[in-house]
Amino acid sequence: MKRAIVAMGGGPTRVINRSLFGVVDEAAKHGIGVLGALHGIQGVLKEEFRPLSPGRPPVSTHRKLPGAAIYSTRYKPTAEDCAKAFEIFKKRDVSYFFYIGGNDTAEATAIVSRAAQSADHELRCFHVPKTIDNDLVENDHSPGYGSAARFVAHALLGDDLDVLSLPGIKVDIIMGRKAGWLTAAAALCKRSEEDGPHLIYFPERPKSLAQIVEEVLAVYRKHGRAVVAVSEGLRGSDGAEFISSKSVRAELSREPYAPIMAMLNALGPIEEACGGAKKDAFGHVQLSGTGTMADVLAAAVKIGAFKAFGKAARCRADTFGYLQRCHAGEPSPADAKEAEMVGRKAVGYAVKKSASGSVALRAERAGGNYRARAELIPLEAVAGKERLLPDEFINAEGNGVTPAFVQYATPLVGKLLR
Amino acid sequence: MKRAIVAMGGGPTRVINRSLFGVVDEAAKHGIGVLGALHGIQGVLKEEFRPLSPGRPPVSTHRKLPGAAIYSTRYKPTAEDCAKAFEIFKKRDVSYFFYIGGNDTAEATAIVSRAAQSADHELRCFHVPKTIDNDLVENDHSPGYGSAARFVAHALLGDDLDVLSLPGIKVDIIMGRKAGWLTAAAALCKRSEEDGPHLIYFPERPKSLAQIVEEVLAVYRKHGRAVVAVSEGLRGSDGAEFISSKSVRAELSREPYAPIMAMLNALGPIEEACGGAKKDAFGHVQLSGTGTMADVLAAAVKIGAFKAFGKAARCRADTFGYLQRCHAGEPSPADAKEAEMVGRKAVGYAVKKSASGSVALRAERAGGNYRARAELIPLEAVAGKERLLPDEFINAEGNGVTPAFVQYATPLVGKLLR
Repeated sequence: MKRAIVAMGGGPTRVINRSLFGVVDEAAKHGIGVLGALHGIQGVLKEEFRPLSPGRPPVSTHRKLPGAAIYSTRYKPTAEDCAKAFEIFKKRDVSYFFYIGGNDTAEATAIVSRAAQSADHELRCFHVPKTIDNDLVENDHSPGYGSAARFVAHALLGDDLDVLSLPGIKVDIIMGRKAGWLTAAAALCKRSEEDGPHLIYFPERPKSLAQIVEEVLAVYRKHGRAVVAVSEGLRGSDGAEFISSKSVRAELSREPYAPIMAMLNALGPIEEACGGAKKDAFGHVQLSGTGTMADVLAAAVKIGAFKAFGKAARCRADTFGYLQRCHAGEPSPADAKEAEMVGRKAVGYAVKKSASGSVALRAERAGGNYRARAELIPLEAVAGKERLLPDEFINAEGNGVTPAFVQYATPLVGKLLR
Repeated sequence: MKRAIVAMGGGPTRVINRSLFGVVDEAAKHGIGVLGALHGIQGVLKEEFRPLSPGRPPVSTHRKLPGAAIYSTRYKPTAEDCAKAFEIFKKRDVSYFFYIGGNDTAEATAIVSRAAQSADHELRCFHVPKTIDNDLVENDHSPGYGSAARFVAHALLGDDLDVLSLPGIKVDIIMGRKAGWLTAAAALCKRSEEDGPHLIYFPERPKSLAQIVEEVLAVYRKHGRAVVAVSEGLRGSDGAEFISSKSVRAELSREPYAPIMAMLNALGPIEEACGGAKKDAFGHVQLSGTGTMADVLAAAVKIGAFKAFGKAARCRADTFGYLQRCHAGEPSPADAKEAEMVGRKAVGYAVKKSASGSVALRAERAGGNYRARAELIPLEAVAGKERLLPDEFINAEGNGVTPAFVQYATPLVGKLLR
């Protein structure tokens, strides 16, 4: 009986456990015994394994749940770790290693695979794709993205209708440190110029604070409301992360925004008191799990509105946070199906092919007929690389998406309201 | 042909448009013509009306959408406004006024109704219940609550599994300025002591900052993670809203929390620059649409963890914000059905009964068989009153719910995962 080890790396998604189910169920069909390493590569190094079976917990019980059923890790293994991992695989006579995750995980898988190639034990390593960021190169899209995008699309639909009911300005901060894929999904329920989100800001299109405030107030003047989707990874004019950017800090240091800068300056001592890095707090602004960016943008817009209109405007900001990847509401049906499919395919390749590799998700979209399929590509083709939102998906003003993006993303998220 | 006017007040819910559909469709069956007043009582006063029909927009198109299809208002009418509204109803020969909303809306309806009683035009006024806060007295529960509670239950389920995957401390801020009903729903997917949320804090149970930090760290020590649900309406030991509370401010002014107080003090000048009230900013801390409370609690917990363990803990905080009432994902099926039902019932009472009133949602729960029904009660019985979470639904420690609450709320939210 052949043996396999499966593990999960990086942030969980709504459907990552479907990939786990796919791997374990397909392995069972091929008579392969599967051990789950708890907390990714860390579980391998500590030899914390649990035998997995498709009909038993946690595989059976967590199949439809968010979160990582065998836990995850942010740990990036060193070359030594990978060599050690390979020794453990060899000792336990493991033939296949399946690592479910994003580009960092693909990199870890590639390093383990290289360690194996120069040794006398046959081990094949497979990266199974997963990321709400949708930033894996060589992939049409990534399992996890469709469900997160669905959550965001329905969030902005609801938020726009809410703001239409009780008018004002609304700023929503959306996940994505480097790529604007998830933020772009904010537009998927927009049917006309009148519908929100009226403005979308991406990491791929640096902006000044003044420009954002000006554009938001122009929309507010025109429509009587403004709904704005902002990527947490947005950059200032100098290309650095927005709140940390020197150009934005310079704007915040001048009137009328100086009170915001004073508040930001007060965050440094808090970080110190928490045991955080002692240097400039700006270098370390955490993006998710904090409301700072939303509160800064809302304050700037409010100050701008007060200056422009002479009265206070209703302006609210929400940071969608972890709900985007973990809310247990309905996943995208296509995403759920494809997540299981890439898991099964990885096992299929392990059994049939002689090479290690990454399972890439391709799509045929000829004539509006969407169909996803998998392909095995070299680990190095994906490892550590990032795919940004291409120019053709961002409008000329750099503050919205193109119809081409909507066409691209629509089949990934399932049927939406409106 | 009899004429009716329908309007919506207060924050929209996921299913408020189903109540609108119920009113308009039932009215059509009884040959009653319906005008929608845009933005609630303000639309009445400005005579901004739109004829409504069950098969035409916005009633047909918005039936399954969140937001208020004929827009809402936070405006509280004066006695003069109500007298004016009555004159407008009389001039237009309106026989029925249906006002969909919470307890403030019930109060406005009651005032209009009293103006009608002392005049020579027969007008009957009906309050159609709606609020995610679930705080209407004389009601078993309110339309809108079930769907918001479902969103929160699935949010905490996902969040707990996410934190289990990548351990740390997570604080989630949940809507509800005075009552803890929605925050309590955080517990609905919890199956054991090990599951999160491990701690739930309600407006009904004032807490000191020190007590919260201590309880969170105790959970973190025990389970290796801590998931905490906090009502935005939580109060400090002195009974005032948490961040504004003198007792909490005193705690924040002392070490080790003083840096947090310095940050809060920096918010006052921002509020001034936005045209907000110039007095102490603490008196005006906005609860939803800002991440301040989450960030304060996360900072306090992080500081506490650093002091206790000598190293920085992973601690994140999310403010669920407006998504709780407007996310366009699946509503609770029972909630959707009941929202339409109370709209229909209001018209039924208008046609059959001679009195004005509020449609109250009752429930039969004998032997575990849940069945909702409506009843017409006097407007004054509901108007302006608030129903807090009763003692029997909060645990002895004041940091969790009882099995009785879970039993109460389960039929309202629909089938949940886990």
